[in-house]
Amino acid sequence: MAQLRIALAQANPTVGDLSGNTDKLLEWARQAADRGAHLVVFPEMFLTGYPVEDLVLRASFVNASIAALETAARRLADEGLGELPVVVGYVDRAGLQPRVGVPKGAPLNAAALLHRGRIVARTAKHHLPNYGVFDEYRYFVRGDRLPIFRLHGVDVAIAICEDLWQDGGPVAVVSQVGAGLLVVPNASPYERDKVDVRGDLCARRAREAGCALAYVNQVGGQDELVFDGDSLVVDARGELVARAGQFVEELLVVDLDLPAAPAGVRPGAATVDAGDGTAITVERVELSAEPVAPYPPEPPRIAPRLDDLGEVYAALVLGVRDYVTKNGFRSVILGLSGGIDSALVATIASDALGPDRVHVVLMPSRYSSEHSLADARELVRRQGVHARTIPITEIVNAVEKEIELHGLAAENVQARVRGAVLLMGLSNEHGHLVLTTGNKSELAVGYSTIYGDAAGGFAPIKDVFKTMVWDLSRWRNAQVGRESPFLYGFAEPPIPENSIVKEPSAELRPDQRDTDSLPPYHVLDRVLIDYVENDMGRDDLVAAGHDPELVTQVIRMVDAAEYKRRQYPPGPKITPKNFGRDRRLPITNRWRETAP
Amino acid sequence: MAQLRIALAQANPTVGDLSGNTDKLLEWARQAADRGAHLVVFPEMFLTGYPVEDLVLRASFVNASIAALETAARRLADEGLGELPVVVGYVDRAGLQPRVGVPKGAPLNAAALLHRGRIVARTAKHHLPNYGVFDEYRYFVRGDRLPIFRLHGVDVAIAICEDLWQDGGPVAVVSQVGAGLLVVPNASPYERDKVDVRGDLCARRAREAGCALAYVNQVGGQDELVFDGDSLVVDARGELVARAGQFVEELLVVDLDLPAAPAGVRPGAATVDAGDGTAITVERVELSAEPVAPYPPEPPRIAPRLDDLGEVYAALVLGVRDYVTKNGFRSVILGLSGGIDSALVATIASDALGPDRVHVVLMPSRYSSEHSLADARELVRRQGVHARTIPITEIVNAVEKEIELHGLAAENVQARVRGAVLLMGLSNEHGHLVLTTGNKSELAVGYSTIYGDAAGGFAPIKDVFKTMVWDLSRWRNAQVGRESPFLYGFAEPPIPENSIVKEPSAELRPDQRDTDSLPPYHVLDRVLIDYVENDMGRDDLVAAGHDPELVTQVIRMVDAAEYKRRQYPPGPKITPKNFGRDRRLPITNRWRETAP
Repeated sequence: MAQLRIALAQANPTVGDLSGNTDKLLEWARQAADRGAHLVVFPEMFLTGYPVEDLVLRASFVNASIAALETAARRLADEGLGELPVVVGYVDRAGLQPRVGVPKGAPLNAAALLHRGRIVARTAKHHLPNYGVFDEYRYFVRGDRLPIFRLHGVDVAIAICEDLWQDGGPVAVVSQVGAGLLVVPNASPYERDKVDVRGDLCARRAREAGCALAYVNQVGGQDELVFDGDSLVVDARGELVARAGQFVEELLVVDLDLPAAPAGVRPGAATVDAGDGTAITVERVELSAEPVAPYPPEPPRIAPRLDDLGEVYAALVLGVRDYVTKNGFRSVILGLSGGIDSALVATIASDALGPDRVHVVLMPSRYSSEHSLADARELVRRQGVHARTIPITEIVNAVEKEIELHGLAAENVQARVRGAVLLMGLSNEHGHLVLTTGNKSELAVGYSTIYGDAAGGFAPIKDVFKTMVWDLSRWRNAQVGRESPFLYGFAEPPIPENSIVKEPSAELRPDQRDTDSLPPYHVLDRVLIDYVENDMGRDDLVAAGHDPELVTQVIRMVDAAEYKRRQYPPGPKITPKNFGRDRRLPITNRWRETAP
Repeated sequence: MAQLRIALAQANPTVGDLSGNTDKLLEWARQAADRGAHLVVFPEMFLTGYPVEDLVLRASFVNASIAALETAARRLADEGLGELPVVVGYVDRAGLQPRVGVPKGAPLNAAALLHRGRIVARTAKHHLPNYGVFDEYRYFVRGDRLPIFRLHGVDVAIAICEDLWQDGGPVAVVSQVGAGLLVVPNASPYERDKVDVRGDLCARRAREAGCALAYVNQVGGQDELVFDGDSLVVDARGELVARAGQFVEELLVVDLDLPAAPAGVRPGAATVDAGDGTAITVERVELSAEPVAPYPPEPPRIAPRLDDLGEVYAALVLGVRDYVTKNGFRSVILGLSGGIDSALVATIASDALGPDRVHVVLMPSRYSSEHSLADARELVRRQGVHARTIPITEIVNAVEKEIELHGLAAENVQARVRGAVLLMGLSNEHGHLVLTTGNKSELAVGYSTIYGDAAGGFAPIKDVFKTMVWDLSRWRNAQVGRESPFLYGFAEPPIPENSIVKEPSAELRPDQRDTDSLPPYHVLDRVLIDYVENDMGRDDLVAAGHDPELVTQVIRMVDAAEYKRRQYPPGPKITPKNFGRDRRLPITNRWRETAP
C-alpha cells in the first residue's frame, strides 16, 4: 500500500470568466500545497465554468479555453506550485473534419493533468448527457482516451462526470486495466431528492472499478442551475471515507492508503474494448514511482448533511446570491405586498446579500387591505431592508381615463404598473436587479400577470410550490439564532406570522381570494406534482386517486399557461422540472391531456 | 421499366393536433386517389406535427400518436382509400429498457406504410440531428430498419429527413441492396440561402442510392420555425423531375418510369452494414408485383422559385399567419409609430390576415413628431386597418408624479406604458395577439425596452436586420398589382414612402436619432452579420476589414444585450441565428470577445 494526500477543490467558477477562474485555480492549488496535498482535483470544465451553452460553438472561445489551460500550467510552475499535480476541466477541441451533425469545431468537454509547467495528459468526457438540463450532443464530441498517471507509486485514472452514470466506458476500462484511484471532476447540479443517489452511485462504481474514487463537484449558482458541491471520496469497497459540505466552497483534503501500482507496467498507450460498443485508448504516464515516506494521516472529514428544507433553502439563497453577484449587480428590488410569496423572497434576498442590499417597494392600490400594508411594514421592521411606499391609484386612474378595461384586463393594469413601470423604472434608475415573487404553483396554472408580477430579472421561487413556500417560511423563522452561510443573523423571526397564516389573495379586486380561481393549494400542488414533475397523463392521474374533474381543470390551466411561463425570468432549479429548459412544449400546442 | 404515379403531400400540420392532422391526411389521400396516384407520401411526423419538443417525453402523447396512426389506417380503409398505399410520419417508441441517457420512453421519429387498413411497415429515423434548431438526441432513439416495399413491381425504400444529410445509414444501404425509388418524408425548415442546398443534396443522394428520390417536406409556420415545402423529385441521375411551390400547401403528382424490381428477391429481413459503424435491417414486403398497365404520363410540374426577398417575405407572412391561427387568435394589435419597423409589421400582418383583422394604435407622447403621426395615419388610410389614437402624456405624467426618473429610465416609461400597459390591456380586453415591431439589428445591440416595445406575443421581424427591413418595404411596395398567397390586394403601395426614407428615431426624447447611440445601420448590419451569423471572433472581424473600434463597440453591445433578447417573444426564423434557440449563451457570461 502507498499513502497519498489528495485535495478536492469544491470551488465556484463563473461561466466565461477564464482569467478569474484561473486565478481561483492558482489560489486553491496553493492552499492544497500548503496543506501537504500530493494531488489537487478541480471540477469539470472549471476553467470555463459550466454550462457554457452556445459559447462553446465560437472558435474564439475554445481557443481562449485552451490558452487559459496553458497559462494555468505556466503560472503554477512560475509560482512554485509546479510539483503539485493538478487535474482540471476545460474545453478543448478534437481534430475532426467538419461535417453535418458534428458540433461546429468539435469541442471536447476535457480535463488535463498539469505538472511542472506542462500539460502532461489530456482526456475528454466519453459519455455525453443529453437529457434534463444537459445538451451535450449539441456541444461536444465524445472522448476516447483514459489517462492513468503514476503518482508516488499509485496509478490514478481520470473520468468525467457522466462517465460515472453510464455503463461501459471509462469505469469499465479501469476495472479491466486496474488503478489505485479514480478521480472524477463533475458539474452536477442540485436536485431535490431524499435519497443519496450520488453517494450510492460512487460506491457502486468504486466497487466496479475496484479502486477508491474521488468525486469532485462544482458549487455555486449559474443562471438557473445551482451546483451543490457535496464532493466525496469512497474506498474500493464503496465505503464513504470523506465528504465535503453542501452549497459551500471547500477544499476537502483526504489521506488515503492505496494499493501500490505493479512495477511491471510501462508508460505508453493501449486500446481496450470499453464494453459499450466503443474502444478507449489507455494512456499511461509516470510522474513519480516512489511512494511517499509514511506520515500520520489527518482524521477524515465527513460534513453533516442538511435536512430537506435546509437543502432547498440553501439552494435558493446561493442561486440568488450568485446570480446577482456574477451578473455584476450590487442590490435587488422587489414589490412587497404583505403576502407570503414576496415575504419569503425578501427574506431569501436578505439572507443572500444582507438586508442593506435589499430594496422593497410597497405599492398599495384601492384594493389593498390594511393588514397587507401592516404585514409588509412589519417585515421591513424585522429585517431592516430599505423600503418605500408608492401608491398606484393615480397612475391606474390615468390609464383608465384613456382606455376602458374590464375584469382580468383591468386587474392586470395594476400588476403591470407595479412590475413593468415602477419596479423596472427604479431598477433602471438605481441599478437594482428586480426579483419576481411568483411561486411554481401559480406559474404552473398561469395565475400571474405577464409583464406584471412576472416582470423582473430573477425569480427566486419559480421552482417552489406554494405549499413549500409556507414550509420554507416556517422553517426559516425557526432558524433564528443558528449560524449558517445561508442565514442572516436576524434577532427575531424575519417573516411576520400573519403573512404565513392568512389566506392568499392577489388583491386586484375587492375581497379577491386565490380560491376564487384555484383549488386550495394543498390540493392543487398534489396534482401539479404528479402532472408536471412525474409526467403522468390524465388517465394515470385519475388512477392515482385524483378527482377527475379537478384533474381536468388543473391540466387545462397548466397547458394554457405555457406561453406565460416562457416569458418568466430564470430562477434557481430545485426539482427536475421547473418549466424552464425542461419543459419545452411547443407554444402552438393543440394536444391536450384533457381532449377526448 | 415500370410506371408509377406518386403524390407528394406538401401539407401543413399543427403540432399536437392529432385529430386535425389525421383529418388532413384523409382529405389529401382522397385527392391523391382522385388524381390516380399509386402512392402518397406525407412529411416527417405529419400526424403529430414537428417539432414536438418535450411533449414527446410524455408517455400519454406517444400513446396518442400510435393510436392516431392506427385510426388513420382504419379510416383510410373505411373511407374506400385502403388500396392507396400511404407513407406518413408519426411518433412511435422502441421497446428499450429505461436507462440513464436514453430519452424517457425511447421515442422514435417514425414513419409507417399504411395499406388496406393495416400498418404494413414501420421505420424510424436513423441519423438524429442535434444542432441548430434540432435537439433529437434529447427526444429520440435511433432507428435501425429500412423498409422496402414492392409496389406494382417497383421496390420503394423509405428514409427520413436527416438520413439524407449524413453519410452512411439508409442511403448507403439502398445503394447496396437496390431499390427503384427512395421516398423521404421531411420536416426541414426554411433558412435564407441563395444556393439550392436542398436540390443539390437530393441529386447527390439519388446518384449514390442509384434510384429516383422523392423529397416531401412539411409547409407552414410552427412557433419560430417556418417550413417552406419545396418538395421535389429527382431521377436516378440526379436530374430534377418535379418541384412543388414554396411556402404553399400542394399535392405534387408526378409520373415516373422506374426500373422494375428483380423477380428473385423475396419478402423478409436481412441485416446489412450501414457504413457508419452500425447495422441496418432491410425489411421487404410486397404490396403488388405486377406493373401497372401503361398510361400516358402527366407533364411534370416544376414550380417557379421565388426571388430572395420574395422568399423572406413569404416566410414572414406565413410565420405570422400560422402563429396567429394555430394559437386560436382571430386578430392582432400593434403600436404604429410612423417609423418603418411598425409600418412593415402592420403590412406583413395585413398580408397574413387581411387588414380587417389588424388593429393599430397610435400612441403619441410629448416627443412624437408631426410627421410620425401623419405617416402612421397615411398607412392606416392606404391599408384600411382598424386604428385608434391613445395619447400617453397624462399617464406618463402620473408616473412621474410618483417617482423621479432620468435619462434611459425615464425614456423606458413611455415604451412600457405603450407596450405593457396599453397594448397588453387592449389585447387582454379584446383578444388580439400583440405583435412586437423590433428588428434584429436593434434586438442584437439591445436598442429596445424590455417590457416596452419588446412586450407582446409574436415578433414578426425579430430575425430581419434593419437594412433588410428597408429592402423588404421597397420590395413589398413594388408588388402592387401582383397576385400571391402572401400579398393582400392593396390598390396602392401599402407603406408610405416617407416611413421608408426618413431617418430612424425612437422619439423618446427631443430630437433623438438612432445614430445618437448606434452606428449607421448599413455599417452596423455588416458587423452584426459577421459576428452573429458567422460566429467570427474579434480578431477575425478586424482581419475581415471591419474598423477595430466599431467592432469593439458592437461586440460590447451585443454581448450585453443577451438578457433582453431572452425575454423577447418568438418570431419567424429566416437565418441560422435569430437569437432564440440558436444562441443560448449563458446569462451570466463573463467571457467577452472584447476582453484583452
